[in-house]
Amino acid sequence: MGAILEKIEKTLTELLAETRPSSLFAAMRHAVLGGGKRIRPQLCLASSAVVGGRAEDALYPACAIELLHSYTLVHDDLPAMDNDTMRRGKPSVWAAFGEATAILAGDALQALAFQTAARAPRNGEKILAVLAEAGVGVVRGQSEELSTLNPSTSQPFNLSTFQPDIDFIYRHKTADLFIAAAVMGAYAGGGTEADVARLREYALNLGLAFQYEDDLLDGDVGFPPEEAKRRIADHTAAALASLEGLPGDTAFLSALAQRLACRTA
Amino acid sequence: MGAILEKIEKTLTELLAETRPSSLFAAMRHAVLGGGKRIRPQLCLASSAVVGGRAEDALYPACAIELLHSYTLVHDDLPAMDNDTMRRGKPSVWAAFGEATAILAGDALQALAFQTAARAPRNGEKILAVLAEAGVGVVRGQSEELSTLNPSTSQPFNLSTFQPDIDFIYRHKTADLFIAAAVMGAYAGGGTEADVARLREYALNLGLAFQYEDDLLDGDVGFPPEEAKRRIADHTAAALASLEGLPGDTAFLSALAQRLACRTA
Repeated sequence: MGAILEKIEKTLTELLAETRPSSLFAAMRHAVLGGGKRIRPQLCLASSAVVGGRAEDALYPACAIELLHSYTLVHDDLPAMDNDTMRRGKPSVWAAFGEATAILAGDALQALAFQTAARAPRNGEKILAVLAEAGVGVVRGQSEELSTLNPSTSQPFNLSTFQPDIDFIYRHKTADLFIAAAVMGAYAGGGTEADVARLREYALNLGLAFQYEDDLLDGDVGFPPEEAKRRIADHTAAALASLEGLPGDTAFLSALAQRLACRTA
Repeated sequence: MGAILEKIEKTLTELLAETRPSSLFAAMRHAVLGGGKRIRPQLCLASSAVVGGRAEDALYPACAIELLHSYTLVHDDLPAMDNDTMRRGKPSVWAAFGEATAILAGDALQALAFQTAARAPRNGEKILAVLAEAGVGVVRGQSEELSTLNPSTSQPFNLSTFQPDIDFIYRHKTADLFIAAAVMGAYAGGGTEADVARLREYALNLGLAFQYEDDLLDGDVGFPPEEAKRRIADHTAAALASLEGLPGDTAFLSALAQRLACRTA
């Protein structure tokens, strides 16, 4: 996967090359390049490979999902949202370039994600539909989380009975992008609908395990750590079980699930 | 076009039906429904018809371009951008729903635009690529305009020599969406590449005339009114000339160009 990761960085860099207006593209590069674990692109490429695709088949979908993910981070960090001034050890985009440019850079990154996915060499229409579904889904998850955090914008709030719907939020905020990465990869690699269904199930569980692990690492989990650990173990097991029946070598996808469940950052 | 406009309103209403979380979709409906001249959807549908398409062929692309246009207005109105509290005689989305929901509603409308365009019954891949190109282009235009208005974020500023590049800004901020509307319509209707090229040229000139007219109506034009009027007349003439050679009845497109050049609101 090392050579492939280099290819992803190179392609992202090319997609974000100096273009007028330069401040917009500088902000977009700041958001995307020089950081990030590229988990979703790896998932996309590995999903293509496991159904028999070549690396090139899924290169643009892999970059597209990273661009979409990056835009959500740029907008999440805005003062009206999480108001974060730092991201990946650097100033967040709005802190470095101003709020207006951060709004626009996020908007352009979303459009660029679709433009990039449209360059997939096969099944472009299906791939774009999958990306669009995730694009709506991720915002539904963020919006649900927001009304949880800012109950004044939502229903009357009663702390003693209030229970945010973590399943809905995580399913959409996090898992939808994992699912899109895997399903786009499966289509890009020419997989069957049965392969697509297996990879969708794998990615759903991978995404949920990833988000619970994220919360555990942040110390920001909505229930006891033991419960979070149990959920991580369950979803990781379900992800691994979903790999059964795929035509290719599942070693990378299997290792990815185990790695994400045990990560320390 | 009356029955078709009703169909557009109905389809937009269906696309924005109550979905969880309800505050997000309420904000999206507020942005899109109950207002707007639907110029871009009309352009899309008429472009499909003039190359021989049926109305249904371009219905989803027509709604998609309106969703994309609507998201740009939602984000334009934000406090960090134009800081407008009113839009089409109603509170703007952020004024009615808060900044965070307005950011998310705009983001979701952009994704929904792509999801909607993906439902076009033919040439879906080309249609989505055209929409994505416009999605990047419109932000480039807005960003260029922003650095003109807020020169502190850009190069050292000298009022006496500074001349915003109106051609670049209008080409992208406004004409890119007109072009996408027409070209998507032409592909949706099964037009030839020669038809696509004619409609692209028509829409470029229509968009530029529209924007100069907009500025004249706002009293916000960057040069003498006579110069603006001359440009409107020139671009309208160029738009009309581009209709030559199209296979179908160009009466609607011809009237649209003349109507936009003489509008009073």
